[in-house]
Amino acid sequence: MVSAALTEDARSRASRVRLLVTDCDGVLTDGSVYYSARGEELKRFLMRDGMGVDRLRRLAGIETAIVTGERSAALCRRAAKLAIRDVVLGADDKAASLEELAERYGLRLEELGYLGDDVNDLGAIERVGFASCPSDAMAEVAAAVHYVCMLPGGRGAFREVAELLIEARTGSS
Amino acid sequence: MVSAALTEDARSRASRVRLLVTDCDGVLTDGSVYYSARGEELKRFLMRDGMGVDRLRRLAGIETAIVTGERSAALCRRAAKLAIRDVVLGADDKAASLEELAERYGLRLEELGYLGDDVNDLGAIERVGFASCPSDAMAEVAAAVHYVCMLPGGRGAFREVAELLIEARTGSS
Amino acid sequence: MVSAALTEDARSRASRVRLLVTDCDGVLTDGSVYYSARGEELKRFLMRDGMGVDRLRRLAGIETAIVTGERSAALCRRAAKLAIRDVVLGADDKAASLEELAERYGLRLEELGYLGDDVNDLGAIERVGFASCPSDAMAEVAAAVHYVCMLPGGRGAFREVAELLIEARTGSS
Amino acid sequence: MVSAALTEDARSRASRVRLLVTDCDGVLTDGSVYYSARGEELKRFLMRDGMGVDRLRRLAGIETAIVTGERSAALCRRAAKLAIRDVVLGADDKAASLEELAERYGLRLEELGYLGDDVNDLGAIERVGFASCPSDAMAEVAAAVHYVCMLPGGRGAFREVAELLIEARTGSS
Repeated sequence: MVSAALTEDARSRASRVRLLVTDCDGVLTDGSVYYSARGEELKRFLMRDGMGVDRLRRLAGIETAIVTGERSAALCRRAAKLAIRDVVLGADDKAASLEELAERYGLRLEELGYLGDDVNDLGAIERVGFASCPSDAMAEVAAAVHYVCMLPGGRGAFREVAELLIEARTGSS
Repeated sequence: MVSAALTEDARSRASRVRLLVTDCDGVLTDGSVYYSARGEELKRFLMRDGMGVDRLRRLAGIETAIVTGERSAALCRRAAKLAIRDVVLGADDKAASLEELAERYGLRLEELGYLGDDVNDLGAIERVGFASCPSDAMAEVAAAVHYVCMLPGGRGAFREVAELLIEARTGSS
Repeated sequence: MVSAALTEDARSRASRVRLLVTDCDGVLTDGSVYYSARGEELKRFLMRDGMGVDRLRRLAGIETAIVTGERSAALCRRAAKLAIRDVVLGADDKAASLEELAERYGLRLEELGYLGDDVNDLGAIERVGFASCPSDAMAEVAAAVHYVCMLPGGRGAFREVAELLIEARTGSS
Repeated sequence: MVSAALTEDARSRASRVRLLVTDCDGVLTDGSVYYSARGEELKRFLMRDGMGVDRLRRLAGIETAIVTGERSAALCRRAAKLAIRDVVLGADDKAASLEELAERYGLRLEELGYLGDDVNDLGAIERVGFASCPSDAMAEVAAAVHYVCMLPGGRGAFREVAELLIEARTGSS
């Protein structure tokens, strides 16, 4: 039902994805960071997105990688919990990071999916086969992607894309 | 008023519940987990759900048990505060956990209620007498339960089911 | 504008309030409690409510007191920050606590205002001159008070009542 | 698109801003403060607002300063992360703080922008060239500013004003 809103072109693009690359803040989280007197302290993730990472891997053979401009130990701990191997921190040029990931996995860029929410994701969005964003992404981003999620960042956008890719790859979710 | 939306079948099922089993993440919480550099740090619970556990016990003689796929010390502390004795952590097979709980309490499966939100709850949902889910559960789950709450996970879904069971058992809430 | 929805009776009751007593969880917070492996860790308050405590005191000579069934060190720290002297913790019988507060302040019960959100507040609600609740209070509570706020707990309900009392007492807010 | 709702007067005022001064609680946050047994522990900020600070500086040469009545170490850490030099803590008289900032930067008050949400911001709001507030500001504040954001505090109000100022200054955002 999720993918009912997909155009034929988007569905076809989704079906070719072998690696899903995602931004962290504003996608896996709602963009919030919790500061204490010690500095950045917490990020808030969603269990349901974690199950999306697991289902992508198990049902469709699709791995998840994270590319972020930040250097967050909290994100690294979350990624470790989900057995995500590739976390690119401090990525100033996300498009370049995508190309390195594609090479590492032996994939072409049209076999990569991407999820991002802000203007520093536009370079990556232009390069991948299937680009998507949370429902509350910046307007410039929503205008540039193949699929705008029904759910916002940190509230299910990642899981929505995961189920869509599983369905596109396997014919069911 | 809560139970106005209950079908006759669901009301009859609810009236037989003697033990309410609930998932944690996405039901007692909104599914969020807060990570720091030390790993998973916090979960957010609702005081009003805690009062539901107390009222179920005091007004209807119904105990609450928790079954979760995770291993969360924060959940254990919350359960201890609410004097919940049975917390099943790391439950890979929730249906099997339900059967063990039923045996421990000397109950038949139709005397168990269940609250879950995601696809790994489907096995448990199919077995119990009265299955329910938060308003923001995954679509597959909402399609499988006897009752879909008006309130989302972590924002009152558990309390809503608690009051419904009290009313079904005692004729008032 | 806030008080436009007040009945004449409620406005008259509000104008006699000299001490505002409030519940904590679900009123000064949205009812959430954050647990870690160490137990209850955090509660979330609203700065704008804090300004309400200050304005009540400064503009209308009305003090604020807190009555709660819980024993929360976090609440004590928040109360200290706002220079609230009277915090009744572990109050099993909130109506009795109200009567003690009234005596301590040399006030009659009709000179007390109260803000509560759940069924354990009903005894207190029945006794005070002006009873109110957040917009997301339990239905039994909303049915029992003189004024239901437009704003929910932890998102401005306390400030809304504070401004209403200031206006009722001084003719402006 | 953001600035479509701007009056000609407001757009002209926005185009003259050289320094954006902002309140913290209720603007850079949603007004929440998280207390533990140790006192005020956390504030929650938005990554997207941080990118607004960066883009203002880089694309339009506009610096950001913070003026707050509170004394929060968490805010100082967040400001340090964003390379914000001027953070005025414990500001009892925000209008006076604005005048000091204007002098420090060699600017006239009409070259200052301001973002605030509560009644203690009114003095500052009356003095600056371009005053704005989050969508969920107190009604007295919303009535006094040149621009009311579409987004609430801590959920993008600051970024909305940042993009608006960039567009007003450079003709694009």
